[in-house]
Amino acid sequence: MSESVLNYLKENRERLIGKLEEFLAIPSISTEQAHKEDVLKAGRFVADYLKEIGFKSVEIKETAGHPLVYGEWLEAQDAPTALFYGHYDVQPADPYELWDSEPFKPEIRNGKIFARGASDDKGQVFMHLAVLEAYMKTEGRLPVNVKVCIEGEEEIGSENLYPFLEKNKEMLSADFALISDSGMVDKGQPTMLYGLKGFTGLEIKVKGPDRDLHSGLYGGAVKNPAMALSHILASLKDAEEHVTVPGFYEDAEELPEDERKLMNEAPGENYVETVGIPETAPERGFTVNEHIMARPTLEINGLTSGYQGEGTKTIIPSSASAKLTCRLVPGQDPQKIQDLLVSYIEENPPKGVTVSVKREPLSAKAYKVDPNHPLLKKAADSLSEAFGKETVFVRLGGSIPVVEQIDQLFNIPVVLLGFGTPEDNLHSPNESFPLEHFDKGMEVLATYYKEAASLK
Amino acid sequence: MSESVLNYLKENRERLIGKLEEFLAIPSISTEQAHKEDVLKAGRFVADYLKEIGFKSVEIKETAGHPLVYGEWLEAQDAPTALFYGHYDVQPADPYELWDSEPFKPEIRNGKIFARGASDDKGQVFMHLAVLEAYMKTEGRLPVNVKVCIEGEEEIGSENLYPFLEKNKEMLSADFALISDSGMVDKGQPTMLYGLKGFTGLEIKVKGPDRDLHSGLYGGAVKNPAMALSHILASLKDAEEHVTVPGFYEDAEELPEDERKLMNEAPGENYVETVGIPETAPERGFTVNEHIMARPTLEINGLTSGYQGEGTKTIIPSSASAKLTCRLVPGQDPQKIQDLLVSYIEENPPKGVTVSVKREPLSAKAYKVDPNHPLLKKAADSLSEAFGKETVFVRLGGSIPVVEQIDQLFNIPVVLLGFGTPEDNLHSPNESFPLEHFDKGMEVLATYYKEAASLK
Repeated sequence: MSESVLNYLKENRERLIGKLEEFLAIPSISTEQAHKEDVLKAGRFVADYLKEIGFKSVEIKETAGHPLVYGEWLEAQDAPTALFYGHYDVQPADPYELWDSEPFKPEIRNGKIFARGASDDKGQVFMHLAVLEAYMKTEGRLPVNVKVCIEGEEEIGSENLYPFLEKNKEMLSADFALISDSGMVDKGQPTMLYGLKGFTGLEIKVKGPDRDLHSGLYGGAVKNPAMALSHILASLKDAEEHVTVPGFYEDAEELPEDERKLMNEAPGENYVETVGIPETAPERGFTVNEHIMARPTLEINGLTSGYQGEGTKTIIPSSASAKLTCRLVPGQDPQKIQDLLVSYIEENPPKGVTVSVKREPLSAKAYKVDPNHPLLKKAADSLSEAFGKETVFVRLGGSIPVVEQIDQLFNIPVVLLGFGTPEDNLHSPNESFPLEHFDKGMEVLATYYKEAASLK
Repeated sequence: MSESVLNYLKENRERLIGKLEEFLAIPSISTEQAHKEDVLKAGRFVADYLKEIGFKSVEIKETAGHPLVYGEWLEAQDAPTALFYGHYDVQPADPYELWDSEPFKPEIRNGKIFARGASDDKGQVFMHLAVLEAYMKTEGRLPVNVKVCIEGEEEIGSENLYPFLEKNKEMLSADFALISDSGMVDKGQPTMLYGLKGFTGLEIKVKGPDRDLHSGLYGGAVKNPAMALSHILASLKDAEEHVTVPGFYEDAEELPEDERKLMNEAPGENYVETVGIPETAPERGFTVNEHIMARPTLEINGLTSGYQGEGTKTIIPSSASAKLTCRLVPGQDPQKIQDLLVSYIEENPPKGVTVSVKREPLSAKAYKVDPNHPLLKKAADSLSEAFGKETVFVRLGGSIPVVEQIDQLFNIPVVLLGFGTPEDNLHSPNESFPLEHFDKGMEVLATYYKEAASLK
């Protein structure tokens, strides 16, 4: 650990927060055409920052959409190379009226900085920039080689990132990737995220009569598409959350006992309180933590059929449909799972209706890195020290597509050093980030960049 | 049969059609406040008509909504009394642009009269008025006593009819009721409708988390309400259309062999062609005609949950709901069936969600009259003779609430002499009524009023 670097961060804290506020004030909403210039402006902020602290090669790379910023500092001979990924675009801020302060006028209240992007992901990107600055300004160099890749389209699907990564595989090659775009399981609870789920999806459409029919005049002749759909859906999963589609679990990695232990040690959310359910419902044979982190799931995301207004309308609906997504674990191939589901659904259609399945084109494989990998152990140690608390190791039920892409393309460990908290209101009004995490997080990053030097 | 009456109808045909056109030209749309005066005007048309032909006691009875017309002619000593019910209000006519001629400017094309209300129900009410006129003008009297009750709120639920019937039970007492507000199974195919189904309904609501949740972060902890709903719905009916709720069929009248024969002799619709389904799906052990006419049904009318837009949204929906209605057969009590369903659904809720059931307040018992009743046999004979074709006896999967009310209140046979056809476009643009049915229908009614005289 470099005392001078930590001191630099402390001494420059106010100025750095000022710079962060400047970054957050740019409304870089990637999904809104009206903010195209602002997105570019946020990209320029990153590029200028890198240049200013001494990165030699910094470029704003044009894409078919918003540009991405690439910069590198490669003068740490014999040291490993880190690929640092993040994004400078943000979610829309509406509904504006629900914000207590302006989304693009950062405000500090109760030890938190409030602004769109404070946690996701400008705030966390900025922590890296500040730490890189601290090294350059105090030691004149970085402990490791660093390739920085910050995109402007994460919130709209990273459509142009993947082609860029593929095309520039050589240029981007690294020993490990570093991403700070996630969170801790709880405020102040250091967390090592070592696995993510993959996903696949589809939509089932059941077509019955060519129009809605009178339920009295046709009931008994015409199969009800909504009932047919219910039978199909109920045949996919049993009452104890076990997916009943043959082969669904076949390739799923067995859950090792030591990982089960890690997962069950991680603090769990009190779901009854946080989301208002009567009780949790994990798959039989597994705990809630195990199911969320390491067992595949199948969820209905939406149902639609017939009359949905007030009161009664006595019809047999013309059609019924359901959207489904699965979260997958290591070993499962999204394409194979989608194929299994499609065959299962299409091969046994209920009598009297036509069943078709539309495949969701996006998919992702699950990602997992060995929780005992030294790169993760070191990160965990830094976290434990800075936050004064033992780090928990968790896997996430969600997916971060870029992690899977990096894994597939470069086959390198991805270190997910996330400093967000469950109270950050990502994608919602009043997004915030605790300054305590800002300070301690930078301490962790400073230590980590140093420690990683010995881990090639 | 009275030749003079039939001759009168023939000789006065053009004038009568002119009067019918006058009746149809009144836009008596009961659901639209703007047409309140028109509804009253149509009521006056009926009242004036009755007075003109010699009904002594004719009144426009005020109600909390639109008035109803009551008139009586009770001078046929020793003859039975008929209660003739119909309605002079009509459905709205929009979308107007889909009509080939103005909905309230009757036009005759290809042997049909086109206008809103031509079949439902002004056209059929008028046929009775014309026949009553013919008797009064030729014979100076009617063959039976006639109580006429024509309401102006049928298309909006007859809310004020029932209290009126109950309050005036004495005044309205009769030996049988006569209603022409239904149709034949096919154009030119005389049809005796001798049964209707009852109905009951409910809405199932499955409540999960207090908001839509991220399917990755919560999948495995939180029960999916849409999947829970699918399990509930699939548990109500099996793949062969047999309702699996215990007790559902318990009180349902067994289907006698002779009725099965009648039903299977009735011409069936070619559903594959008419509504575009791959094949029909009746309950196991029953034909389509049997199921539609005489077996109870349970239908999902609508489903709603979560995300229903384009593409994918990876959520666990906060809730899911389904609207259901049952069509019931004689013997089944709507309240008891609703109770059975509610208990079945509420007593075994899936784990992790809250299930509630909202009861549909409207319900009706099924109605059935013995198809061998002389009042029906005579009607069938008149129909066969006028249309030159054997009359088929059918029961209808739908409900006509007023029939059940009359049955309950007066316990008299209801003769449903309907002359509409499946091509009449009831409630749709280009409603029409074939003049051939107008002519032959009046012939049937003329004969029937006469024949009924001997059937007390």
